[in-house]
Amino acid sequence: MSIYTASATAPVNIATLKYWGKRDVSLNLPTNSSISITLSQDDLRTLTTAATSQSFQEDQLWLNGQLESLASKRTQDCLRDLRQLRSELELQDPSLPKLSQWKLHLVSENNFPTAAGLASSAAGFAALVAAIAQLFQLPQSMSELSKIARKGSGSACRSLFGGYVAWEMGHLQDGSDSKAVQILDQNQWPEMKALILVVSDIKKDVSSTQGMQLTVNTSDLFNYRVSTVVPERFESMKQAILSKDFNQFAELTMKDSNSFHATCLDSYPPIFYINDTSKRIINLCHRINSFYNTNIVAYTFDAGPNAVLYYLRGNEDKLLAILNQFCDKIQGWDAKFSSEQIQNWNKIYSKDLKQDFESMISNYRNDINEKITRIISTQVGPGPQSTQESLINETTGLPK
Amino acid sequence: MSIYTASATAPVNIATLKYWGKRDVSLNLPTNSSISITLSQDDLRTLTTAATSQSFQEDQLWLNGQLESLASKRTQDCLRDLRQLRSELELQDPSLPKLSQWKLHLVSENNFPTAAGLASSAAGFAALVAAIAQLFQLPQSMSELSKIARKGSGSACRSLFGGYVAWEMGHLQDGSDSKAVQILDQNQWPEMKALILVVSDIKKDVSSTQGMQLTVNTSDLFNYRVSTVVPERFESMKQAILSKDFNQFAELTMKDSNSFHATCLDSYPPIFYINDTSKRIINLCHRINSFYNTNIVAYTFDAGPNAVLYYLRGNEDKLLAILNQFCDKIQGWDAKFSSEQIQNWNKIYSKDLKQDFESMISNYRNDINEKITRIISTQVGPGPQSTQESLINETTGLPK
Repeated sequence: MSIYTASATAPVNIATLKYWGKRDVSLNLPTNSSISITLSQDDLRTLTTAATSQSFQEDQLWLNGQLESLASKRTQDCLRDLRQLRSELELQDPSLPKLSQWKLHLVSENNFPTAAGLASSAAGFAALVAAIAQLFQLPQSMSELSKIARKGSGSACRSLFGGYVAWEMGHLQDGSDSKAVQILDQNQWPEMKALILVVSDIKKDVSSTQGMQLTVNTSDLFNYRVSTVVPERFESMKQAILSKDFNQFAELTMKDSNSFHATCLDSYPPIFYINDTSKRIINLCHRINSFYNTNIVAYTFDAGPNAVLYYLRGNEDKLLAILNQFCDKIQGWDAKFSSEQIQNWNKIYSKDLKQDFESMISNYRNDINEKITRIISTQVGPGPQSTQESLINETTGLPK
Repeated sequence: MSIYTASATAPVNIATLKYWGKRDVSLNLPTNSSISITLSQDDLRTLTTAATSQSFQEDQLWLNGQLESLASKRTQDCLRDLRQLRSELELQDPSLPKLSQWKLHLVSENNFPTAAGLASSAAGFAALVAAIAQLFQLPQSMSELSKIARKGSGSACRSLFGGYVAWEMGHLQDGSDSKAVQILDQNQWPEMKALILVVSDIKKDVSSTQGMQLTVNTSDLFNYRVSTVVPERFESMKQAILSKDFNQFAELTMKDSNSFHATCLDSYPPIFYINDTSKRIINLCHRINSFYNTNIVAYTFDAGPNAVLYYLRGNEDKLLAILNQFCDKIQGWDAKFSSEQIQNWNKIYSKDLKQDFESMISNYRNDINEKITRIISTQVGPGPQSTQESLINETTGLPK
């Protein structure tokens, strides 16, 4: 009995204009359009192998080595939609094997710890859709497939593209116009780098889905954000990306992160995702931008205290010469930066920066060094990739 | 040469619907109406003695024993307006001494540490206006005088009344309709108590005036707050007070505090007044209200991390049996509560509450005990009071 397999990797994306609020919970239709940057899969990606065979007894998923349930309505919706597209192909060409009728084995692995709270569900559903679409040899465009990934996890739709991606909210009730589109390819503005500061937090936060709907239902300010603030910002941010205007892009990104967290605080009861360490990072970024008299760094925070900082490669030394002083003890620097580079930052700091930043460092350094557990240095990257690396044994149909 | 003196005390007030934003900085005209509760002067008050004599050489102010400048435009505006009203009296009755033309000596003392960040400027300007109005024997109503106090410090206008007070924003350019009015006298709803949790914070915050105008000028959400959210909430909160509906009053108070801090977070750069300790207090209050299935406590935060909790006397044991467990090591409990009462709370806690609150306590207790430096237990109280206690030597015209 033959086993068909296909493998794909998919990236994490971090929104610069936030998705917060569903107008339809079942279809994951958002209350506003959003924008994100896709991060390099060298650092953060999900690899998924999809296999199907007439001999398989049931749909099964192994995630990071553990057998997981596929019972959630969201996953079922994705599988149903993908099988529907496959069955249309089979109807057109009866010689095709009836993959749409067979059970699926799915094996999925992240190259980063899921516990870090780094949008793993977006990469996960994007990789699932990409791998099965490839297995089924579906002819649909990435934007079409993004509608399926969206049903799994809203922000997953944006992980079907590399570079700079917009999720157009759409207006139709069935969600058929709520899809991701690419604003710029990663190669059209390749200088964008990201530094993720993973902030430890003992408290379990409100989940995104719960939090969103609490905000939608209780925040007075939320309606104004989605009806008036975001539509204008969406157009401005697209323009800033198209014209590669980092200064403007950074301002819009920081404002939108703050606006999103403001509506969380305006929810009832209020939701707090950012903490005092996050705020120190925010204050530090504004101080750095003010020092250089232009925005060389933009912070953004998702539904948790982790900071993602965006900056251009050409400003790396300017930025990291300061930032490294605040969190020199954190692990992760040596994974991407040589000791010569770090020594060079120390020199730049002592010579040009110390006078202006010393008092802030003495206030913030202990807390930041203590509360940030890890730094991940990465950059803008491509969308899903087909790969020969397989997680399934092609004889047994089970995880390797 | 005779010296005329008069002394008055004035209270602190803590807003339950926040004043944040000036539409006219020079006249302290607000962008929205606000509501506050006046606190008892037994715990928090400014005492001011005003003296005048033809022999005085210059206007002088001694504040808490220190000679202070009277040069600020705001103080000058208050003195000018009060003298103007006096001169009208002198014009009507030429037999009156020409106090309006003489210099003033002002001596002022707070019965609480100004460092605690407890709205001392409101009590200060209210006492200054009340003492001078009395010295000048002005016939104007408190609402009329509140317009003068408002020019000194916006929220000072609300300290000219006891009980439950509204500051009607008004709409005229000259501010002549922007004044305080009483919603309810303290004796009409006397059960209202307040517990102030003074939270230590090493960082110097953005001043209220700077912060307000940054919000007015940069927050996208702010306009919606003042144009749409607050007008409706103002009417609802007045109704809740008039009908003594604590449950509704508490919800509106908590929502308004959060809405105000949300617009601070939405400012650019963002302003943070509440910190992680404040958030723990917020979470705890929601947990307590949820446990009792009705709002028995309302938190509110001004431009700093200090919490003010409002509750009704009848719920004191219910509330403090829990709250005391979180901050039992803080000084201030024994000033108002007997050791029998505190032991009784411990009993109630162990018997009825421990099971539900123990895990929260183990998460929060160390931080709250460490970061809260002082508790002040007080209650709703009256407006400015004339007093025979004088801070000025009536022979020398100088501070005693």
